[in-house]
Amino acid sequence: MSQPVRRGRPRQAETDERLLAAAAELLREKGPTGVTIEGVSSRSGVARTTIYRRYDTRRQLIAAVIGPIVDRPLPPVDLPVEDKVRWVLDQVAGLFEDGLGRGVVAAIVADTDPEFTLALRAALDRRLERLRGQIQTDVDTVGVVADTDSDAVINLLFGAYLGEVLRHGAPRARWAESTIALVAGALVAPRS
Amino acid sequence: MSQPVRRGRPRQAETDERLLAAAAELLREKGPTGVTIEGVSSRSGVARTTIYRRYDTRRQLIAAVIGPIVDRPLPPVDLPVEDKVRWVLDQVAGLFEDGLGRGVVAAIVADTDPEFTLALRAALDRRLERLRGQIQTDVDTVGVVADTDSDAVINLLFGAYLGEVLRHGAPRARWAESTIALVAGALVAPRS
Repeated sequence: MSQPVRRGRPRQAETDERLLAAAAELLREKGPTGVTIEGVSSRSGVARTTIYRRYDTRRQLIAAVIGPIVDRPLPPVDLPVEDKVRWVLDQVAGLFEDGLGRGVVAAIVADTDPEFTLALRAALDRRLERLRGQIQTDVDTVGVVADTDSDAVINLLFGAYLGEVLRHGAPRARWAESTIALVAGALVAPRS
Repeated sequence: MSQPVRRGRPRQAETDERLLAAAAELLREKGPTGVTIEGVSSRSGVARTTIYRRYDTRRQLIAAVIGPIVDRPLPPVDLPVEDKVRWVLDQVAGLFEDGLGRGVVAAIVADTDPEFTLALRAALDRRLERLRGQIQTDVDTVGVVADTDSDAVINLLFGAYLGEVLRHGAPRARWAESTIALVAGALVAPRS
């Protein structure tokens, strides 16, 4: 007897899934500017009015697509510094290659779609707040230098991958370990 | 009496300048794919046959345009490590913002024009060979750690700027000094 009552739910969830899958596809294929209410509607077959019932604006739709992509696990708090650096570097590589894709990363560097860029930065900021906190905690617990700018560390790890890709197209075999040694060294080195 | 003999030279130099100025303009305006023999011909008003007399291929033309852009001064060898890092970071920022421009940097990350990407990487490699040598010399003279991967250091500095731009759009006020402290620390830190 309860089946008819439940029937609406799975269908709504299905619609949501279809919408977000279409938006993610468009993002990979066409870059940020491909993710529009109109585009998602025609790719998913879901009516625009139905999309607007879920997302008031394109920005909200973008946030919903980006959310799961940037939602990556943080390193366990009790890992040694070097292993934490390796963990974050792995996640950054995964985010750029499999999550966003290089086309989207390039679009952010060139800021070709300011609305998307802002939404992605906001999502990253929220996600990285806990990592920043963890770096600050590491100052007290595992000898990370007291005046470490945790945001600069994070951006150095984001950038390390981009710099290597810019110079060599793909990371060289020894790149990850060299970079881990450098950044871990930086975190525990005495400041002049 | 010697004037008629000399007349050809300045005109050739002028043509060269006009060609390369047009190519540089197209690069800034349209990105790598805008730099073609055809495009440069119509922008500069120099005939295609004249261009082909100077550059056999598009790749040679690209190399000629890129050359002066990536030709940046290296830090004096006797600077302290921290000042060398600051110097290189400044040059990287200048290269990305005023030299290539973010659109071109983005095009390299996404590799939208493989011929251009290869030419730029080759030009950077040649240019950075001396910097790599200098980092290796610093191992002997100013206490840089012996097993330092000089290419990873350079890419970390290239990337540092890109990571900051990706996260914040433009470098934050304290970014440069934080990053200099981190990277200089990394260079002199004991390896685990």
